[in-house]
Amino acid sequence: MNERDALRRLAADLPRAGDDAAVVDGTVITTDMLHERTDFPPGTTRYTAGWRAVGASLSDVAAMGAEATAAVAVYADEAFDPDDLDEFIAGAVDVCAAVDAEYVGGDLDTHPEFTTATTAIGSVVDDAARDDSDASASGSPEASGAVTRSGASPGEALCVTGEWGRSAAALRLFERGTDDALERANDLFRFTPRVADGRALAGSATAMMDSSDGLARSLHQLAEASGVGFALESDAVPVHLAVDDVADEGERFELAAHFGEDFELVCTVPEPTLDRAREACPAGLVRVGTVREADEGVTVDGDSLPDRGYTHG
Amino acid sequence: MNERDALRRLAADLPRAGDDAAVVDGTVITTDMLHERTDFPPGTTRYTAGWRAVGASLSDVAAMGAEATAAVAVYADEAFDPDDLDEFIAGAVDVCAAVDAEYVGGDLDTHPEFTTATTAIGSVVDDAARDDSDASASGSPEASGAVTRSGASPGEALCVTGEWGRSAAALRLFERGTDDALERANDLFRFTPRVADGRALAGSATAMMDSSDGLARSLHQLAEASGVGFALESDAVPVHLAVDDVADEGERFELAAHFGEDFELVCTVPEPTLDRAREACPAGLVRVGTVREADEGVTVDGDSLPDRGYTHG
Repeated sequence: MNERDALRRLAADLPRAGDDAAVVDGTVITTDMLHERTDFPPGTTRYTAGWRAVGASLSDVAAMGAEATAAVAVYADEAFDPDDLDEFIAGAVDVCAAVDAEYVGGDLDTHPEFTTATTAIGSVVDDAARDDSDASASGSPEASGAVTRSGASPGEALCVTGEWGRSAAALRLFERGTDDALERANDLFRFTPRVADGRALAGSATAMMDSSDGLARSLHQLAEASGVGFALESDAVPVHLAVDDVADEGERFELAAHFGEDFELVCTVPEPTLDRAREACPAGLVRVGTVREADEGVTVDGDSLPDRGYTHG
Repeated sequence: MNERDALRRLAADLPRAGDDAAVVDGTVITTDMLHERTDFPPGTTRYTAGWRAVGASLSDVAAMGAEATAAVAVYADEAFDPDDLDEFIAGAVDVCAAVDAEYVGGDLDTHPEFTTATTAIGSVVDDAARDDSDASASGSPEASGAVTRSGASPGEALCVTGEWGRSAAALRLFERGTDDALERANDLFRFTPRVADGRALAGSATAMMDSSDGLARSLHQLAEASGVGFALESDAVPVHLAVDDVADEGERFELAAHFGEDFELVCTVPEPTLDRAREACPAGLVRVGTVREADEGVTVDGDSLPDRGYTHG
């Protein structure tokens, strides 16, 4: 059984699983494991690792449209080097501060491979505090006030935050391995979790998720959860400048849409609220397509978009 | 740097770390990593592993005197066997149900060694809901309403919940390896997190922690955090029946006090509230000694108690 089938099984068994985070009594909770072999290429500093690992969980909180409250992390390594640990914690503290959350510690463990397990919690703002006219016009916001993956309707705008391909570009720079390349790669790896954008979109987005598995896979997952199709326009996808420095022209869309790990938000927004949503997102919100009927499938420029991305180790 | 020094460093850097769980805006959060080599002996079923891993985090919530709300887990293994995964989830679901919490899923990861990272959250009951007359009589309950490790005062009773040595006995039964022994070992490994007891003690305990590192180490940690000493009476420590089946008479105290992983509560209770606290604890609350001045140290039957326990891998 591969990881994807296993996750599907998990979601089928547990009614609160299957979205970016679970919601229990207004508290959002999500957990992730990252480890050296698959997630931290040689040259990744421990500061970057702490930032990125905790950021991955905060990104899931963002994808629910929730405020981020706090995060914890397990730090596991063969040995505990004080400088490594201090750096990791500093990264964790700083990424939390970037989204007005607090890093509150965690656990240590001895493990043959450097491994982190991070958990973030957040809180869903009361329904009453949301703009109910938008909410009711836009379909099916969940009773808790969280934005799930299942509320998209045909005709709505398909949108993304930020710029894409940044982690793909970082990986190529890590491979290059010069001091300058490594510094830039680390910088690209330290993304800002889109908590402010998620909060801004909570009033208008009908479905939302983060893009840990890449844009293409995210669209297939949203399509499945919402029972819709998507028509993506490849030219509309905002590609990070760093991609142009490392990729051939023909690779741009591949790196931006299939690589993943960019931790941007993918969401659907009803046309009437699109302008306001765009103005409210600090990372920028760009329309990249349209929600279609399920039987139209997930397409890019009219052709079928393969459900293919970066397979997490 | 060993794990203990590293944990101390972590606590020094992070004001909310260093207790069994962190408290943020009334929400308690705690995380742990367990893995096959050090925590799940051969013969441990995946059901037991799920129960025990999630239970370890719920035990930390209990130690803060908080209600348990929910738990998540990362399940990492070389491959995802559907039966293994289902069993693990069933164990996680059942241990949550045992303490009125909800298991809400988590993440999957590929890892060369079976590894779990669990996180539990809980909520601290409002100060107003607590018995303030006891709280003010007993010293320093934290403003949040959580019970920390730092409030013990000389003269108070030192108490423990449940029976001790159960995990030590389980390990010997795992080593024995017969079908009967394995079944009993698994049963012993599936402890009930003391959430109900922690809640019952929240009104009267001045300091509390769970005993993941064993009674002896827990006492040294409580002594350091509270700035006190302890006089432990070895005969008073309630020893689990299973210990008698696997240990020589001379080993009883060693297995009960130094082995650890029993996930019982260790707490200090002012004499006037002791009877009421005892009646309120479903797992039983036994007085095993007295809080002393710091310069009297931590003693057992008048001799110095070594700060020695099970070192987690």
